Amino acid sequence: MFESIGAKPLVFTTPVWIIGTYDLDGKPNMMTVSWGGICCSKPPCVNICLRKATYSFAGLVEHAAFTINVPSEELAHEAEFFGRASGRTTDKLAATGLTAVRSELVDAPYLAEVPLVLECAVRHTLEIGLHTMFVGEILDIKAAEEVLDSRGIPDPKKVRPFVYSPEAKVYHGLGVNLGKAGTLYKEITRD
Amino acid sequence: MFESIGAKPLVFTTPVWIIGTYDLDGKPNMMTVSWGGICCSKPPCVNICLRKATYSFAGLVEHAAFTINVPSEELAHEAEFFGRASGRTTDKLAATGLTAVRSELVDAPYLAEVPLVLECAVRHTLEIGLHTMFVGEILDIKAAEEVLDSRGIPDPKKVRPFVYSPEAKVYHGLGVNLGKAGTLYKEITRD
Repeated sequence: MFESIGAKPLVFTTPVWIIGTYDLDGKPNMMTVSWGGICCSKPPCVNICLRKATYSFAGLVEHAAFTINVPSEELAHEAEFFGRASGRTTDKLAATGLTAVRSELVDAPYLAEVPLVLECAVRHTLEIGLHTMFVGEILDIKAAEEVLDSRGIPDPKKVRPFVYSPEAKVYHGLGVNLGKAGTLYKEITRD
Repeated sequence: MFESIGAKPLVFTTPVWIIGTYDLDGKPNMMTVSWGGICCSKPPCVNICLRKATYSFAGLVEHAAFTINVPSEELAHEAEFFGRASGRTTDKLAATGLTAVRSELVDAPYLAEVPLVLECAVRHTLEIGLHTMFVGEILDIKAAEEVLDSRGIPDPKKVRPFVYSPEAKVYHGLGVNLGKAGTLYKEITRD
């Protein structure tokens, strides 16, 4: 039996990404978002959604660029801090001790300490409501050497990303490996 | 040390959602996507991104509505099947034995067997490239009674959603509980 629980911004699961931008003075700022996702394969694009009230907003518009920094489980406290404190009143990089690096591809900083970084140039902006969507073209991905598998592809179990469940308000790491894509569906077609 | 791995539609992690639509003849169709995410809190909106070549595309445009069906781990095989087979040549509901139910709120069907359903009306369409984005307003969420916690909120450990890691091409369930949102960041501010 289904129960109606109303209209909410709720789905399982959402990502936890630290967004790197420069502010209007060119100072690096980091904020954490869970509203976003990959949105195109060619050109490779990803979107993130921000409220206008955030400190990152104006800088993102001005520089038309952002990075997505995928934190490992070890950085869960820092990731949440970047989402709670405001760059208006707090030097979040100093408070966390993490390091901003200037991207050579886009006008945005990334974090030296995360295992996976996407460098993105804004291609579309869409006003939706409380949130504005920025669609960024992924110009390059940088991965820490130690998280690459033998094919040079980031291994999720080495990256150790974590996810957020809205309303339930809880974070989970990755669990059991359910199998390789392209193998599971065969069980159905074999029927 | 970071290694540049090029421009790809890769980020960790992406969701696995079964999208319910009616086709141009009003027949229910299901397809699976991993390109999408929540994109606004007010009004609550979520986006999904489809290639024009998919069978679901024309019906989604015509009916301006879709459902997001969040499969539990138990439905991983069916979810992948919905993403691999085409409604053009296969009756995917018959092949999986799953049941389409007509939404009373939007012109789209949902699956009776999933723990969590979002009923969405298309509000924006954005051409990005190979993929077209549909932003849907979430008009209601339906949750199976047995996945609700004592507050009436879906419990992710009962829903048991799973995630996809692009390029690595692997699915993972939810793992360790890293803590409640709103508690982790305090460790940083206490410094």
